[in-house]
Amino acid sequence: MVYPTIGILGAGQLGRMLALAGYPLGLRFRFLDPALDAPAGHLAEHIHAGYEDTATLERFSAGLDAVTYEFENVSVAAAHFLSERLPVYPPPAALEAAQDRLVEKTFFRNLGVATAPFAIVDSQADLEAAILQIGLPAMLKTRRLGYDGKGQIILRESADAATAWAALGDAPLILEGFVPFERELSILAARSRNGEIACFPLIENHHRDGILRLSLAPAPDITPALQSAAEHIALRALAALDYVGVLAIELFQVMSNEFQVTTGPNSSDLSLVTRHSSLVVNEMAPRVHNSGHWTIEGAETSQFEQHLRAVLGLPLGATAARGFSAMVNLIGALPDPAVVLAISGAHLHLYGKQPRAGRKLGHITLRAEHEDLLRARLEQLQRMIQ
Amino acid sequence: MVYPTIGILGAGQLGRMLALAGYPLGLRFRFLDPALDAPAGHLAEHIHAGYEDTATLERFSAGLDAVTYEFENVSVAAAHFLSERLPVYPPPAALEAAQDRLVEKTFFRNLGVATAPFAIVDSQADLEAAILQIGLPAMLKTRRLGYDGKGQIILRESADAATAWAALGDAPLILEGFVPFERELSILAARSRNGEIACFPLIENHHRDGILRLSLAPAPDITPALQSAAEHIALRALAALDYVGVLAIELFQVMSNEFQVTTGPNSSDLSLVTRHSSLVVNEMAPRVHNSGHWTIEGAETSQFEQHLRAVLGLPLGATAARGFSAMVNLIGALPDPAVVLAISGAHLHLYGKQPRAGRKLGHITLRAEHEDLLRARLEQLQRMIQ
Repeated sequence: MVYPTIGILGAGQLGRMLALAGYPLGLRFRFLDPALDAPAGHLAEHIHAGYEDTATLERFSAGLDAVTYEFENVSVAAAHFLSERLPVYPPPAALEAAQDRLVEKTFFRNLGVATAPFAIVDSQADLEAAILQIGLPAMLKTRRLGYDGKGQIILRESADAATAWAALGDAPLILEGFVPFERELSILAARSRNGEIACFPLIENHHRDGILRLSLAPAPDITPALQSAAEHIALRALAALDYVGVLAIELFQVMSNEFQVTTGPNSSDLSLVTRHSSLVVNEMAPRVHNSGHWTIEGAETSQFEQHLRAVLGLPLGATAARGFSAMVNLIGALPDPAVVLAISGAHLHLYGKQPRAGRKLGHITLRAEHEDLLRARLEQLQRMIQ
Repeated sequence: MVYPTIGILGAGQLGRMLALAGYPLGLRFRFLDPALDAPAGHLAEHIHAGYEDTATLERFSAGLDAVTYEFENVSVAAAHFLSERLPVYPPPAALEAAQDRLVEKTFFRNLGVATAPFAIVDSQADLEAAILQIGLPAMLKTRRLGYDGKGQIILRESADAATAWAALGDAPLILEGFVPFERELSILAARSRNGEIACFPLIENHHRDGILRLSLAPAPDITPALQSAAEHIALRALAALDYVGVLAIELFQVMSNEFQVTTGPNSSDLSLVTRHSSLVVNEMAPRVHNSGHWTIEGAETSQFEQHLRAVLGLPLGATAARGFSAMVNLIGALPDPAVVLAISGAHLHLYGKQPRAGRKLGHITLRAEHEDLLRARLEQLQRMIQ
């Protein structure tokens, strides 16, 4: 196999960017996705069919050297079917753990990693009990198939429970407590078939309406201890899943106060000694991730190339940031490319999709050698494309 | 045209890298090339046919927003045929000037730019006369269709003339004198449809057997005056050709000695006052160029994206280098990707071609933040892939 062919389940923008990163490595690609005008279909072979039919999977897998996926809602049965025939990475077990919020949170809890408080909700009675256990506000979420804020409802008071149950109660649910976080971060780590591991610098993420809008990388004001804590979480997850590929873990940075008893006239006085940051896992994605798009220009190796290197058992690439990057998602409407490209250091990425409200149509990565310059360019961009 | 479609004449590695740079801009591509297994055909629509048939050109051009080419030996007639139907950049006149070594050298001479001494050779008698005029050694070259050292013979003594004439005399020829250069450089400049111009930093090139082997960028030890002199040449050429797209100009750096008469006992004594560098044009290519491949990782904007921005009339991108880069061509044989990718900062680019002696199969760009580190990595790579 001079030029290996990789099969990818899903032909969206992540698949498209995987192919763009993989062609220079001499790879060829075949996508499976029922969508007719899928972003990756413009630049590779694309079988327009669903993921469940074994005859389709046979046809898809013929002659492939390895299979991976660009989204985590591929059925585990399909992944297992393929993995009996050829290497499938990340391993189907990782897919299984990531597809169900309850399994996922339990997985991290069993690793000794902090998560938001959670409780299983299979009935309206479960929901009442869960609210008592976790408190309000809390999020009621479907255990499966949620993304970009879909399949979740916030509960602010007990009276919200009935409405939320009526809306989501057809599916298995989970109630998650709120974590009073300082900010949202993510860590992207890769593990190769040969066991090599590499982590990218922590990324700061800003969501609105449940959709990622802006990522800053490297995340500002990260101490080596916090980076190390994030990598420690990633390493434990990679090892536990015998993972291969890029794994994204979304985190909350939480400020904890440390007190000590002061021996004053009133012996029960507590005084604040230190405030320190700790990390709570929100969720993981067993694939390349929107918060890692900045790596195309902003890191020595992109997350897309890194994923392919890992899947093929090639040495992993350097993950150091090159300067400072800001990634802005383009949602619902396309900007004028001439306006974007007039900004020095702006890199435009369009996915070739037809515009539609709420749809991720592309992203822009701004890169600069200095953080101040990056901030200035980001303000310029945000004024222009609003 | 939300997502413009660009037609490209030629589907080799340059076309492939144009498409890889253009997809993120939301562009779509259609290639025309008679080769069946062409590098760009793996990732875009590819019409397998020659460039001369007007029915083919009609079919190729239907629905395109603009046409460009990835090699300069497209017939001018075909370019004119297309340019009556849709925007064709670079303009066919630039193609015409670059296709014929005599026209090309005359073009630069008329701009007041230094070239190697040259003379037209249409007969054996012309050749004898040209040797007398230019001296030996000299290169006898076909005026058209030469590349990578093909179609040229070195003449070291008068007796070589007859053999060289017998080998090449069927085609119109040019005799070129040798330029005693210090090193070979190239400058890549872009001019947009709206007249904006941007130049990349000078590149140092190393050839063997007429084929580019290694480029260093930015070229070491370049004074601002030399960069400025190169840009001045590029700007004159771009303006004279009403050029649109990336233009590559290969240059010789020549050391000139400046003397002055000393008023000593012997009044004819000359003493060396200064040595300074000047530039002599070797040739130009009206397209993206092998010596610019380092820009993919080593510059803020790649030459491929820059060319497409120019052709579409979009703002040009920043051309500043990001650290130091060395580009090594992979000729004839493929290295083990695992060996290459184990080097930190190594970026592998394979073109998907079947290996064959003398064939450009790919390139590796090494990038480092410091020149010393780049040198060390380059030595490591050269030991590994030799």
